[in-house]
Amino acid sequence: MSEVAVSSRRRGGRQARQALRAAPLAEDKRAIQPGLESGNYKVLNDLQIKRIHTAVLDVLENIGLADAIPSCIDVVTAAGGVLKDNGRLTFPRALVEDMLVKVNRNVVLHGQDPKHDMDLSGSKIYFGTAGAAVHMVDAQTGDYRESTTQDLYDIGRMVDKLDNIHFFQRSVVCRDLADPFDMDFNTCYAAISGTTKHVGSSWVEPSHIEKSLEMLHMIAGGEDKWRERPFVSMSNCFVVPPLKFAEDACKCLEVAVRGGMPVLLLSAGQAGATSPASLAGSVVQEVAEVLAGLVYVNAIQPGAPAVFGTWPFVSDLRTGAMSGGSGEQALLVAACAQMGRFYDLPTGVPSGMCDSKIPDYQAGAEKGYNHAVTGNSGTNLVYESAGMHASLLGMCMESLVLDNDTIGSVLRTVRGIDVNEDTLSIEAIRQVCEEGPGHYLGSDQTLSVMETEYFYPETSDRSSPNEWEEKERPTSLSKATSIVRETMNNHFPRHISDEMDQQIRAKYDIKLPRDLMTAK
Amino acid sequence: MSEVAVSSRRRGGRQARQALRAAPLAEDKRAIQPGLESGNYKVLNDLQIKRIHTAVLDVLENIGLADAIPSCIDVVTAAGGVLKDNGRLTFPRALVEDMLVKVNRNVVLHGQDPKHDMDLSGSKIYFGTAGAAVHMVDAQTGDYRESTTQDLYDIGRMVDKLDNIHFFQRSVVCRDLADPFDMDFNTCYAAISGTTKHVGSSWVEPSHIEKSLEMLHMIAGGEDKWRERPFVSMSNCFVVPPLKFAEDACKCLEVAVRGGMPVLLLSAGQAGATSPASLAGSVVQEVAEVLAGLVYVNAIQPGAPAVFGTWPFVSDLRTGAMSGGSGEQALLVAACAQMGRFYDLPTGVPSGMCDSKIPDYQAGAEKGYNHAVTGNSGTNLVYESAGMHASLLGMCMESLVLDNDTIGSVLRTVRGIDVNEDTLSIEAIRQVCEEGPGHYLGSDQTLSVMETEYFYPETSDRSSPNEWEEKERPTSLSKATSIVRETMNNHFPRHISDEMDQQIRAKYDIKLPRDLMTAK
Repeated sequence: MSEVAVSSRRRGGRQARQALRAAPLAEDKRAIQPGLESGNYKVLNDLQIKRIHTAVLDVLENIGLADAIPSCIDVVTAAGGVLKDNGRLTFPRALVEDMLVKVNRNVVLHGQDPKHDMDLSGSKIYFGTAGAAVHMVDAQTGDYRESTTQDLYDIGRMVDKLDNIHFFQRSVVCRDLADPFDMDFNTCYAAISGTTKHVGSSWVEPSHIEKSLEMLHMIAGGEDKWRERPFVSMSNCFVVPPLKFAEDACKCLEVAVRGGMPVLLLSAGQAGATSPASLAGSVVQEVAEVLAGLVYVNAIQPGAPAVFGTWPFVSDLRTGAMSGGSGEQALLVAACAQMGRFYDLPTGVPSGMCDSKIPDYQAGAEKGYNHAVTGNSGTNLVYESAGMHASLLGMCMESLVLDNDTIGSVLRTVRGIDVNEDTLSIEAIRQVCEEGPGHYLGSDQTLSVMETEYFYPETSDRSSPNEWEEKERPTSLSKATSIVRETMNNHFPRHISDEMDQQIRAKYDIKLPRDLMTAK
Repeated sequence: MSEVAVSSRRRGGRQARQALRAAPLAEDKRAIQPGLESGNYKVLNDLQIKRIHTAVLDVLENIGLADAIPSCIDVVTAAGGVLKDNGRLTFPRALVEDMLVKVNRNVVLHGQDPKHDMDLSGSKIYFGTAGAAVHMVDAQTGDYRESTTQDLYDIGRMVDKLDNIHFFQRSVVCRDLADPFDMDFNTCYAAISGTTKHVGSSWVEPSHIEKSLEMLHMIAGGEDKWRERPFVSMSNCFVVPPLKFAEDACKCLEVAVRGGMPVLLLSAGQAGATSPASLAGSVVQEVAEVLAGLVYVNAIQPGAPAVFGTWPFVSDLRTGAMSGGSGEQALLVAACAQMGRFYDLPTGVPSGMCDSKIPDYQAGAEKGYNHAVTGNSGTNLVYESAGMHASLLGMCMESLVLDNDTIGSVLRTVRGIDVNEDTLSIEAIRQVCEEGPGHYLGSDQTLSVMETEYFYPETSDRSSPNEWEEKERPTSLSKATSIVRETMNNHFPRHISDEMDQQIRAKYDIKLPRDLMTAK
């Protein structure tokens, strides 16, 4: 029994609980943490998984993918792929099965700070951002405006401070940058400057990623150091659903693989538009496309770090509009994640792409049920999980903070329930009922588990209606607004030294003004 | 291929889709419906379930419950229970196991209209209201005011119109009625007048339930008709956690059991206050308490219809305040539901008791992740699932409508994914890729599954930022507000005939003015 617990009986429970809260708990003792084992929600049974797997092999062997670039055809046919008369590159069952044996299952996505490294083995789960939103959303007014390079940097700084957002993938397009090279290069620069967490980004041309790798080598302290701990991954849409390779993306993919950069093999079919409206069929096409990408990557370089990036999107079939917040979205993602676990692949799926334009009830509900389902599906990475609105068209700073709390609560469900002699509490129950005060307030057990078994969201208001009235009706949004303001005014990460930053600026055309990267 | 589908190819997809939407689909073909099989989320593994079960038996056999009333002691000790020297009534393992053999597993909760009957066998799931909120929440202003008899009737009318709220349990206290008999009797009257769905209510004294049964016999057309299809159940807090019987509630329970009224055996321990703070311990105490109630009910009358009502609540341990919206809440409920399935009992748990005072982001998120976890847990009944705020202190009409949509989306996840030759879509994929237009818009399959595989929420806005701007920024709340207004102005169920209503009013003191029960 701890001293705090003993003294609490003398001093009264509430004061002791407050004292206990003041002392920070070791991170590995907290109720939630990065890399919890996920997988208690299983939308597919074993037979369904096998039927989907068989259909996937059928599609890959008999239909294959169109529009493969010559270098892709070369490496894949050398590995056993077949170019058909109709020009489609097909993947015989044996080729796919061989690849599934040799694929890299121990991928680590590194942070610039090693404390943010993400081990993707097993079903360890991490939440992060992603996307290519073209708008920033004003949470108070609902106004949409074009997103900029500074927004991207600011989002990075905000993510850097939020415990339950474990990585930062580029989430908005820098619309102030017209030139494609400027945009790709500065996107990477702004993202890695904003946070020490792992960064994902994307590039539209091979030369852009080559130049960016030069900068990453400088920051890492040399190419060998970069290759030891690559802290940026490439989000790569190598496929245009249904079942067509994307030429430029494939060229970039090859540069990344050879440059030691992990790749997110992303297929984003939209059910009812670019993939079958039938949910099972949509899963089949997604899985087939991403497995084709995995064969391709492993044909270039066996064991290259890659993420099984099944991103099945949903259409509202009445209008054709994307519906990222629907229940069908949650189901599709959970099924794809389960297929990823069936193959035991580093798996990444999207969740939380709400349809609502603002952080209101609809946004909360859509994010809540999608995250709960996806978070428990067994995926390793959850992309798009914070800040997004309007089915990925808008990004909102306050929503990053709100979603950080929703993710925290969902991670608490992922963690599950510890069942052991102590937690079963028979003796505690006996004492309270037969000897004790008839309640558990301030008991030793209550004090000892208040941090280890419970997660406390920062923005949720749990006060009674009367207390709420007295506090002038705070909402989760008003609390999030304060946290954003405080962070934007004060948090400017300095992990890239001023000297290094000057070297980068001397060599490349950095568009983010240096004076925006310090407190006023 | 249907005629609609054929003609769509000529007329263009969008028009055909709109035509298809106009024709209502048979209810059993829709993507979601009452009584879907639940259970894809399993927070406990088999070993954990067995350890909890063993601990429960230990608690029942060795600690038991205090404060049993004489009639309870009589029937339970006659069945094999033991009254210990310390006055606690204990339940030996053999007694509990015998009860678990003979308990009624085929309970049906009837509606006044048989189309609303709920078959609780297996893991069929239904969502409904519940609670004893003392406030109505104004969704626009956030103002809280005292709830009245008319509010209860209005909530019933609203529930009557919402497809995904399958039953109506009393959700607010009629604070305009000071006399306890008036309150109990008129609560029952207002609830059954507002909806043809199954009604749950509660009573504080045996004489109140006896009088109410008289009224229910009248409406049913005699006691025998009532006993054939009892359309009202009793929500009964027979236990005051930890492990004490509640005298008055037990007396009411006995009247209900003998009167053929199904009972919800409700234990509502609050972790860290009236049950152990350790989640596993809280589950142990909950399950032990409700199994004690089941022994009691079956000792009165073997096979009496009863619901395993484990309602574990959560405290925010920093303040002691209840936190119905937390992730811990979802976990506790899911674990209790899984114990209910382990025993194969008609099981009812709460979900959606959000902490937020208004229907905002926090409310949506808390309801979203709680419903997703609870909805997939395998429970039969989900109580408190719509309209509640401030951890059950407030009820909001607009939230009923919003939550109806959230429940719909969650039910879509419960339904899961159909995997068969058709849905796997290999031929559809082949056609589109090798022959077809390269997309699935307007394809036969897309048209055929748009109602059977997809759920369309009424209040969610899925438009793009531009469309949203043009429509003057509608929110899910503004849509819900319109639906509430329309329903309140126009929906006055007439399943209880005017003649019967006059007879009831002649015999009993009905407080709800008749002129409030018709359109103006």
